[in-house]
Amino acid sequence: MARGESASKAKIIAATLDLLRAAGLAGAGINNIVAVSGAPKGSVYHFFPGGKHELVTAALRQAEGAVGEGFRTIFSGDAALPQKVLALFQATAERIEATGFTKGCPVAAVTLDIDDASEDLRPISDAAFATWRQIIASGLSDVPAAERNKVAQWILATLEGALILARAQTSADPLLETGELLALTLSRGSPPSRNGRDTRKRDSTRRSRERARS
Amino acid sequence: MARGESASKAKIIAATLDLLRAAGLAGAGINNIVAVSGAPKGSVYHFFPGGKHELVTAALRQAEGAVGEGFRTIFSGDAALPQKVLALFQATAERIEATGFTKGCPVAAVTLDIDDASEDLRPISDAAFATWRQIIASGLSDVPAAERNKVAQWILATLEGALILARAQTSADPLLETGELLALTLSRGSPPSRNGRDTRKRDSTRRSRERARS
Repeated sequence: MARGESASKAKIIAATLDLLRAAGLAGAGINNIVAVSGAPKGSVYHFFPGGKHELVTAALRQAEGAVGEGFRTIFSGDAALPQKVLALFQATAERIEATGFTKGCPVAAVTLDIDDASEDLRPISDAAFATWRQIIASGLSDVPAAERNKVAQWILATLEGALILARAQTSADPLLETGELLALTLSRGSPPSRNGRDTRKRDSTRRSRERARS
Repeated sequence: MARGESASKAKIIAATLDLLRAAGLAGAGINNIVAVSGAPKGSVYHFFPGGKHELVTAALRQAEGAVGEGFRTIFSGDAALPQKVLALFQATAERIEATGFTKGCPVAAVTLDIDDASEDLRPISDAAFATWRQIIASGLSDVPAAERNKVAQWILATLEGALILARAQTSADPLLETGELLALTLSRGSPPSRNGRDTRKRDSTRRSRERARS
């Protein structure tokens, strides 16, 4: 592909991604994509003969990679798990705040817009979430290996949910506050487990008794 | 309003809500609403002269009430907090599973579709989340009063995020697994706090030292 062609294609994907982040499938009509990218309609169909779904697929795959890189930067570091979680939620809070709370996660937005006509996009969303979960899980060296996937899923679910509340409230508080609760929880011994809970209960009872005696 | 009129209006709102749960604003076009409700287009505009946005507002307010009642039933009971959380996530898992993972939270779906043209819907979403958070917070008698809002927000964020992952995966696991982690966390003494963390850190250091000495 010539350099000019490649630049146009990149511009069209970037415009699609931007529209998906803002308004999901509702916002990413071909006419909007043409308007935002500045590319002629013919060139959109030239690069993406499959139309809107092919374009959305390309945009979501790009987001999977780019967002995944951000997750990797945070979770592959040497910081303790609570610090990684705080960094993730703080970075996400700054990112959405910078858009005036108008643009969130494109994969979440598309997932909630999938109906019979767009069912072919579901595996694309699923793959992106799976990649992100795996990147987070790889950075959970503080967590027993058997529990890493579930804890990673919990971190991702909390992040996605807090992003929705942040957009509705036009405030970063839901991200900062849930991130802090999650980080504190994970700093108390991660993950919580049935056994962990029972042990801690016994420990704390024992400590209370010791305090009462002393 | 005559009984027939009221029934038609209810049917139109129910159809709108169903479409919003399935595909957000992307799916709730007037033509779809007419097709799903079986109401003539004229009657849609008769009841909702403001068109789509007026209809979506009415549907979201209905969801705010109905979903809120479900939350109230779970959180106003006498069960311990972890049991309430488990009940919430299990009930939500059953509900989305019954739709074949095609219909989730209408308020989340709309929130992620809001752009400049639909900005007037944002306060409607915000109000629904605020009502739900408050209903959950009112049921958190195990949690210190000052922390109830934040813990309720955390429960709601985790639920909304897990719903997205469940839809993408067409599996109830994200809801059941995150619900269990959250319930176990809250059973270990709620909420986690800075003081709690610091104390525990010192305790655990002390215990390690004691173990090392013995």
